[in-house]
Order: sequence, then structure tokens, then C-alpha cells
Amino acid sequence: MTALEVTLRKFKFTRILSHDTRNKLVYVLGNVDDQLAILSFERAQYDDALIPELAKHTCQLQDVIENNIYGWALGNIDIQQPDTRIKIIYPATELHVKKYEQQDRRMIVETPTMYRDITRPYIQSLPSERIQWVTNILNGTSEADRIIYRDNDPQNGFVILPDMKWDGTCESLYWVAIAFRNDITCLRDLTPAHIPLLKSIQKAAYEKVKENTNLDADQLRLFIHYQPSYYHFHVHITAIAFADAPGVVAGQAHLLDNVIDNIEMYPEYYQRATLPFVIGNNHPLYLAHHPQSE
Amino acid sequence: MTALEVTLRKFKFTRILSHDTRNKLVYVLGNVDDQLAILSFERAQYDDALIPELAKHTCQLQDVIENNIYGWALGNIDIQQPDTRIKIIYPATELHVKKYEQQDRRMIVETPTMYRDITRPYIQSLPSERIQWVTNILNGTSEADRIIYRDNDPQNGFVILPDMKWDGTCESLYWVAIAFRNDITCLRDLTPAHIPLLKSIQKAAYEKVKENTNLDADQLRLFIHYQPSYYHFHVHITAIAFADAPGVVAGQAHLLDNVIDNIEMYPEYYQRATLPFVIGNNHPLYLAHHPQSE
Repeated sequence: MTALEVTLRKFKFTRILSHDTRNKLVYVLGNVDDQLAILSFERAQYDDALIPELAKHTCQLQDVIENNIYGWALGNIDIQQPDTRIKIIYPATELHVKKYEQQDRRMIVETPTMYRDITRPYIQSLPSERIQWVTNILNGTSEADRIIYRDNDPQNGFVILPDMKWDGTCESLYWVAIAFRNDITCLRDLTPAHIPLLKSIQKAAYEKVKENTNLDADQLRLFIHYQPSYYHFHVHITAIAFADAPGVVAGQAHLLDNVIDNIEMYPEYYQRATLPFVIGNNHPLYLAHHPQSE
Repeated sequence: MTALEVTLRKFKFTRILSHDTRNKLVYVLGNVDDQLAILSFERAQYDDALIPELAKHTCQLQDVIENNIYGWALGNIDIQQPDTRIKIIYPATELHVKKYEQQDRRMIVETPTMYRDITRPYIQSLPSERIQWVTNILNGTSEADRIIYRDNDPQNGFVILPDMKWDGTCESLYWVAIAFRNDITCLRDLTPAHIPLLKSIQKAAYEKVKENTNLDADQLRLFIHYQPSYYHFHVHITAIAFADAPGVVAGQAHLLDNVIDNIEMYPEYYQRATLPFVIGNNHPLYLAHHPQSE
């Protein structure tokens, strides 16, 4: 028996942390030998090679509904193949628990005043070590072999590399462009002075993606997060085919084309705009905006 | 044997129409007695009642990887429960095939000129029967029992009702507000004259959702689609918890808070803006923008 099997046998269930019924993915918390353990179970996708055989291997139909040309049922597929992906974190910490626990997410409709008085001081309070990993990428001390493109100009330069979320397939392309300059913390800082940087990132992204994957410019979604997960300017580069890429929803993703157009039309757009964003209600920034709920 | 089982036995596989590996949902095309049939297979979610038992029913582990506190494996769950949802359309038409076939989706970066010369004439060319169902809802000849709220003012009035995509749960709330006036075809038409309508929809949506589900205003995402699926002004009302609600992605969904702010700051914002949107490359509007590809 592998250590994993031993752990599974000893696992004592405490509670469900989250259950994504669309993706059929559940995280559960429990104990193994009095230490925290987190398990996840995810239904496996159908194996492409077996898809032509699914109809004839359907059995034990129940709850059958038939209406005109439409029919529905629940059933089983009697082909022997792994049906579940299992992951384990053991021993786990409270931080792991927090990460996988379903959060109540809320919308904050941030006015320029709220940005100045609450969000900006929050950003400035973050320790600079938090983005040490970005500095390491930029100066070449880590991930140097993963860089796809590098423009060393101190004002308008940037690197492009694959995002850690990318699985390597063309349909789920997920890259990121990170600026060298460190004086743009977020969308709110963007002004007409940054248009050359933004356009240069756009141009390089289109060219490098075309070279590497043959995807055209109009098959890509380039966007900026607000709030971003780290406050050093970067642009997300994803395939449009990756429709449910993490973080492409309105209220978090701002399309680069839109951002450039807004600044060109209205130079102070991002300093004057009300920007709604969605955030977990145990996030420090949420608590800063709702001091009574701490 | 039900008719559905007979059809499944006779099904001759032709090809995969689409395969969503994240949601574990596959559509396949085939023939039954020389007529088209479309089948879909979707992995069933884990039954909530059985989740506490999953760990001890895990078996036949393979591809085990262990690294420090992390472990991964593929396996099976030996609990007897339906593992697949099956749907069938039979006999199916070419229109059904088109609907379920994976489309190549492309970004169009629409300038005001492109709107005036291509998109607007396309909208005006659509037969008015296409939105007869909207008229039926507004005048009470259909779905009258589903109306949640009605404000009969001819200028700023609207109805709120559940969207057909809503499954009735609080976490996946999906309602829609439809304006009575029929002179707003889309986002491009919005001006400061429409602010009272927009704010009135926002206020009623917050109040009615609170009454019906206890969700607060900051747990809702109100947005307008561009392009919309029908050109009669309407606002989508969804729970933020429904993170992967259809159509909430940037480049399709425009947050109502943002729209109101843009118009209040810049009265001609939507007439002057460049608005990127994503569309299937066999959609008539895509073809209108790319006449050479027809």
C-alpha cells in the first residue's frame, strides 16, 4: 500500500470545504492521526478514445423523462476506467483550509475617494517581500528558462512567460506579461504616459502567441485584473477558447483594448472612474472597507 | 425497455460535437435508423450525502504521485450510484447540430464607425418576430405567473422575472429585467436620458432579491450583454456566488454600476467607445464584419 492509500483508509471526515457541482469537484476536511488532512475528489473526464462507445455501455437508466424529440435520464457507464481524481494535502494547516473553503464573495463599488482612503493605503501597507518572486523573474534569478519574450527597456520593457495555471494546450493558453517598471501598482495608476507600454505588450503578445501556437490576435483575450493578486503591473494573455479561465469575469477582468480606448478618450479615466470589484469577505481588503465587520 | 434505451442501443456514432473537459460534458452526433441523433453524457456530481464516505470507498489507485505534504492519484469510487446524466435529441436537425458543435470564437474590436456601418444595419435587419416572445411577456400573454415585479411606467417601466437558465437555488440566482420601451436596442443606445430607468431597475432588483432570497445587494452582479442575444433592452441579475454563470465574462458582460458611472461621467460614452466583443465565427454578425470569409 502506498502512503496515500494508508492516509485514505485512516481519514476521518469533518466537513465539506467546498463543492463545485458544475466542475464536479469537492474539497473535504478531516483528520488523520489527529492532524488536519484535506482531500479533493474530482470526477474524471470521459476518455476521448472511449467516447464513441459510451452509448452502448449505458446501463441502469433511471428517472427517464421523454418529451417529443427530447429525452433525459440518469445512468451508469459500465466501462472500467478511473472515474475520480484524488488529491491530498497532509498534514494541512489552517492556511490550506482557508484557501479551499468556500468564501462568501461580495461586490465593492469603489469610488475614487474609497480608493484614495482605503484601497491605496492597503496596497502601500503590503510588505515588499510579497512580490520578491516577480523581481526574481525580472532579473533572471528564477524561471529564466521559461521566458518567451523579453524587452529590456526600463520605461516600456516587460517579459512574457507562461502562467502557472497553463496546462500547455493551445485551447487553454494562459500567459502573463510583467512590466519592468515598478511604479504602476494597479489599473488606477494608468495614464496616457503608459499607452506605449500597453500597446507594446499587446503587439508582442499577438506576435509571440502566433509564433508558438498559431492562434490569431482575435482568438486572444488580453486583460488586467482589478483587484490584481499582486500589485506590480501585469497583463493576462489567454485563449478565448478558454472561456472559463479563472478570473475572466466582468468586475475583475478589464480588457486591454478597452483600457487603452478609455485612456485615449479620457486621459484621467482610471483616476475618476467608479470601479466595482468582487472580493472574498474574509480578505483583508474587504475588512478594510467594512471596519465594523472585523 | 423505454424508447430512450432502444435509441441508445441503436445509436451509431459519427463524431464528437464538443467536449467540455472542465465540466466533464460531451456531445456526440450519430444516427439511429438513418436519422440524426445527438447524445450528451455528463459526469454526475457527487451526492452530498455520500461525500463523507468517499475516502473509504476509494479503490484501484493508479498514477500515484507523492511530494512532501501533497499527493495525487487516479482511482475509482466503489459506491453504486448513477455516475452519468444522459440527454438525447432524436430525430435531430442540422440546426441542433450547429447549436451543440464547438464554435471557433473570435474577438471583434468594434469602433463607433464599425457599429454604424455594420452592426447597426445588422440589428435593423432582424425580423421583429424574433422578439415576439418578449412582447408576450411584457403584455402579459405569456409567463404572467412568473413575473416577480412589474413597473408599468411607459418610459422607465420594466418587468423582472426568472431567467430560463435559473435552477431555483439561491447560489445560482439568475433573473432578468426587461424594459417596456422598445427604442433601446443595445448598450450603444444608452444616454443620460436612460439613467432613471437604469437606477430604477437596480433598486427594484436589490429589493426583490432581498425579499425572495435574503441575498444582499453586494452579493449580486447586475450586467448588460454586448452583444445581447436579443435586441430589446434587458439587464441580467445574477448571484455573485454563481461565478461561472453563462455570459459573465469581460468582453460580453458590462456591469450596470460601471455603465451608470460611465454615462454620468461622459454623456456620450457608449456612442464614442470602442467596444470589444466575442462571437462565434459562423454567426451572421461575424460574417457581416468579415465579408471575405463568407
